[in-house]
Amino acid sequence: MSDIKVSKEELLRKANKPAEDAMQLHPFYKGKVEVSPKCCIRDINDFAIWYTPGVAAVCKDIQAHPEKVYEHTNKGNMVAVVSDGTRVLGLGDIGPEAGLPVMEGKGLIFKYLGGVDAFPICLNTKDPAEIIKTVQYLAPSFGGINLEDISQPKCFDILDELRRTMTIPVWHDDQQGTATVCLAGLINALKIVKKDIKDVKIVLFGAGAANIRIGTLYMHYGAKPENLIYVDSKGTLHKGRTDLQNHREKWHMCQVTNGAQIVGKLPDALKGADVLSAASTPGPDIIKKEWVATMAKDAICFLTANPIP
Amino acid sequence: MSDIKVSKEELLRKANKPAEDAMQLHPFYKGKVEVSPKCCIRDINDFAIWYTPGVAAVCKDIQAHPEKVYEHTNKGNMVAVVSDGTRVLGLGDIGPEAGLPVMEGKGLIFKYLGGVDAFPICLNTKDPAEIIKTVQYLAPSFGGINLEDISQPKCFDILDELRRTMTIPVWHDDQQGTATVCLAGLINALKIVKKDIKDVKIVLFGAGAANIRIGTLYMHYGAKPENLIYVDSKGTLHKGRTDLQNHREKWHMCQVTNGAQIVGKLPDALKGADVLSAASTPGPDIIKKEWVATMAKDAICFLTANPIP
Repeated sequence: MSDIKVSKEELLRKANKPAEDAMQLHPFYKGKVEVSPKCCIRDINDFAIWYTPGVAAVCKDIQAHPEKVYEHTNKGNMVAVVSDGTRVLGLGDIGPEAGLPVMEGKGLIFKYLGGVDAFPICLNTKDPAEIIKTVQYLAPSFGGINLEDISQPKCFDILDELRRTMTIPVWHDDQQGTATVCLAGLINALKIVKKDIKDVKIVLFGAGAANIRIGTLYMHYGAKPENLIYVDSKGTLHKGRTDLQNHREKWHMCQVTNGAQIVGKLPDALKGADVLSAASTPGPDIIKKEWVATMAKDAICFLTANPIP
Repeated sequence: MSDIKVSKEELLRKANKPAEDAMQLHPFYKGKVEVSPKCCIRDINDFAIWYTPGVAAVCKDIQAHPEKVYEHTNKGNMVAVVSDGTRVLGLGDIGPEAGLPVMEGKGLIFKYLGGVDAFPICLNTKDPAEIIKTVQYLAPSFGGINLEDISQPKCFDILDELRRTMTIPVWHDDQQGTATVCLAGLINALKIVKKDIKDVKIVLFGAGAANIRIGTLYMHYGAKPENLIYVDSKGTLHKGRTDLQNHREKWHMCQVTNGAQIVGKLPDALKGADVLSAASTPGPDIIKKEWVATMAKDAICFLTANPIP
């Protein structure tokens, strides 16, 4: 793209700068989001409108007409960003407190880019049944639930059960969020290289929540299941992967993808592939240049794992 | 106080104004609080500090030093306003959605008067054990818990259990909040009328969570238990109130208060009393002028029930 060559060391140094700034600035602000009034408060009389006695009329109106909770409260624009801290960024199970800076950051993104109020909720339990129940209990205050950084495979069950039982939308960011962005990217990238999604061979490196959903969405959009190949830490997913029989989602992918039943590692899968969706380990040097060189002409690579560090 | 006479109708009309305004203004703002960034975001580079990749350093720092969650996140200034909607203002069990406008209002008050971020959490369960567990699960995101408008007697047990098991402060606003304000008021009122808390006879009209805690705090501050008289909807609390034996807090008050063992209704209790703490039914006409006239000279009345409507 550019004529200026930068060394790997320079790139790494540059990549490390946000972390250094983050360590300085987080303690300065002591958190990233705040809860602020969005209505007018001039004096004590306004409190009589927003709090007692005026608020009672509003409460009774919602009691009589439950759907009016969307008119009288924040509910309609309020999302809970819920995590148990078991799969935070690429850091693994670091716990709910250590995950809080990420969930607060998601609050920033929701508001800054979408105008949506999003509140970070880090739960002190890893038990899927307890997470499900807690989210159900939280429902009255929120218009939607954004699950975030929950380890798999439980994240699939939690999402399914919450979607089945709740009347507000539930979304697992690492699944639907990443997949939606990647599909949008793929649609546009295919236009540029003039390829049809029905014909392209797609390698999905990493079989976590993100790539599972990315592949699913690609297939919904027209990619042929047999043209997809998943590769996890043990190699390609195929019908012979007996180690995956108890993992509902991965085992399903073993059945429907990899029509050629290629057995091997990433370099074997990449040969002749049109698209690479990498959601595995952060780099550098995880995917080698010479492997990418073996891909088809006008290959498309989405490197979606978190960058170093 | 003033020479201008206003009729009861005028007062009621005036009292109703906030409710009319509230019904107009709540749908206009669609909620009272918002979640906003409190840090600087100028461009995409700042997101690299607040979100990935920079935030990972902060997460790892909290993982290694758990107490640093107070430095790197909102936790230290963030309170959860938690209710199950079973005892909202004077409206009773109106449910969590209908209680939400009140909890949002509490968020306003926390921020406007105290600079504290408070987020409204209305829970879709009335089961005390489930409420306790949910609040425990929510702990990582908050520096304190403000329980609000939870019916009694479960509110006492919920508070006790949460205080016993949690490492962050837990407060039941209808108990400790109201009691603290009332004690402050009593201390100052007694100065004005030159009476000593050790000598005053105190009538507590209503034996809900608020007055139970008000009386308890008055006693902690020096009021003699035998000089307190509680009056609930069935009359004075005394040792013969067999209907209260299963209500831990009220039964305790039957034992320690009402040294003269007065049996009767509010007018009987009020005769010669120095202080009235009314936290029963909203007025007007609940407490009659002629009853107040029978109180001691320089009587002090705190009318803490929610005003009409």
